[in-house]
Amino acid sequence: MPLMRTEIGEVLRGVRSAQHRTLRDVAKQANVSLGYLSEVERGQKEPSSELLEAICQALGLPLWALLREVSNRMVLRAQFYVPDTVPDDLLDSRTIRIVPDARTESRVALKA
Amino acid sequence: MPLMRTEIGEVLRGVRSAQHRTLRDVAKQANVSLGYLSEVERGQKEPSSELLEAICQALGLPLWALLREVSNRMVLRAQFYVPDTVPDDLLDSRTIRIVPDARTESRVALKA
Repeated sequence: MPLMRTEIGEVLRGVRSAQHRTLRDVAKQANVSLGYLSEVERGQKEPSSELLEAICQALGLPLWALLREVSNRMVLRAQFYVPDTVPDDLLDSRTIRIVPDARTESRVALKA
Repeated sequence: MPLMRTEIGEVLRGVRSAQHRTLRDVAKQANVSLGYLSEVERGQKEPSSELLEAICQALGLPLWALLREVSNRMVLRAQFYVPDTVPDDLLDSRTIRIVPDARTESRVALKA
């Protein structure tokens, strides 16, 4: 599961892209360095509450809306999350056919 | 308006209190120091995504639920936010009676 800062970064980048704005433009308006904003967008830097607020303001995005979107994404990911490994108790059952090397099909296989 | 980390801290403290658990108990389970958890709860420390996840897990609180609650609180605060100062253009208007030293009544006064 992606970390919170990864989701925050993706949403921020998505909003900026939708506005056809450059890193330079938004960073300048938010009064943060271009490198910092870039790192935040790539989920490599944990933004402080103050700077996150400044970035949101530069994007015209309320902080509550950012957090709601991040929350929604986490719910969606949790619903469709397929673990890389199959739990032992499931492996024991003869009713389950394990499809080799087909991670994307594992949900179907488990249901069959 | 309170910062994001202040809201996060208040929600975490509220959930822990509702569970009648001590800082020591939750900190131990989350594998963070008691001092760190206390600072996070008081909004004095910006928690990293990793440690926030660990604290939420120790509380049995999904991270998405924490963020949704924080988001909801921000919306509520924005709706009922009364600035400490009255804007100059409002002060000029004779239709507004300023109630001295009655910050809680300022909404009523401005409406009258």
